[in-house]
Amino acid sequence: MANPFDKAQELAQELQESEEFTNLKQLHEEVNNDEVAKKMLDNFRQLQMELQQKQMQGEQISEEEVQQAQKQFEVVQQHEQIMKLMEEEQKMSQLVSEINKIITEPLEALYGVEENQEG
Amino acid sequence: MANPFDKAQELAQELQESEEFTNLKQLHEEVNNDEVAKKMLDNFRQLQMELQQKQMQGEQISEEEVQQAQKQFEVVQQHEQIMKLMEEEQKMSQLVSEINKIITEPLEALYGVEENQEG
Repeated sequence: MANPFDKAQELAQELQESEEFTNLKQLHEEVNNDEVAKKMLDNFRQLQMELQQKQMQGEQISEEEVQQAQKQFEVVQQHEQIMKLMEEEQKMSQLVSEINKIITEPLEALYGVEENQEG
Repeated sequence: MANPFDKAQELAQELQESEEFTNLKQLHEEVNNDEVAKKMLDNFRQLQMELQQKQMQGEQISEEEVQQAQKQFEVVQQHEQIMKLMEEEQKMSQLVSEINKIITEPLEALYGVEENQEG
């Protein structure tokens, strides 16, 4: 009989062979090998992360920071490979979240029943 | 050829048949069918959630709230079925996080390489 870990390994293998992952890996390498593009993307991500952290800690985000983020997004938007990479990351992230939803469904069902009983 | 979704379904099935899930389901039903235990656990979780939210929003948690949480934890600690349920939830959560780690390993590897290049 198989066990969850073996099955998870098989699933990881499938994900690795998926179109989403293959495209992502290719674009990731392309952007990383292009120094200018890499720097552009790193800066954009750095700023995004800082703003997200502020938001999570309930800190105010200034008008200036919003404008800076918008400007940086306009810059990366003009870089085709970066945009493709970000689109592919989005697809991959959606795939992983759909997979997670399937896996945790039995748990959701177990705890969902409880909520319905309360309501 | 299989696809990630089929494999995820198979994995969900394996998890549902695991010892962890079977025990969790059993204990969950037992506690939910015991009105006193259920109320005890609901109160404890409610308070825990409130404190966690405060923490995440960077709000101060008062000495009184800490003591209240400790007192409630002492109460639930004395209830054998609740403690067993919480232990089993811990095991299940660990299993799910190990599974997730396996599944996202190819992605971690992809993005890990980038970090190493930067360092």
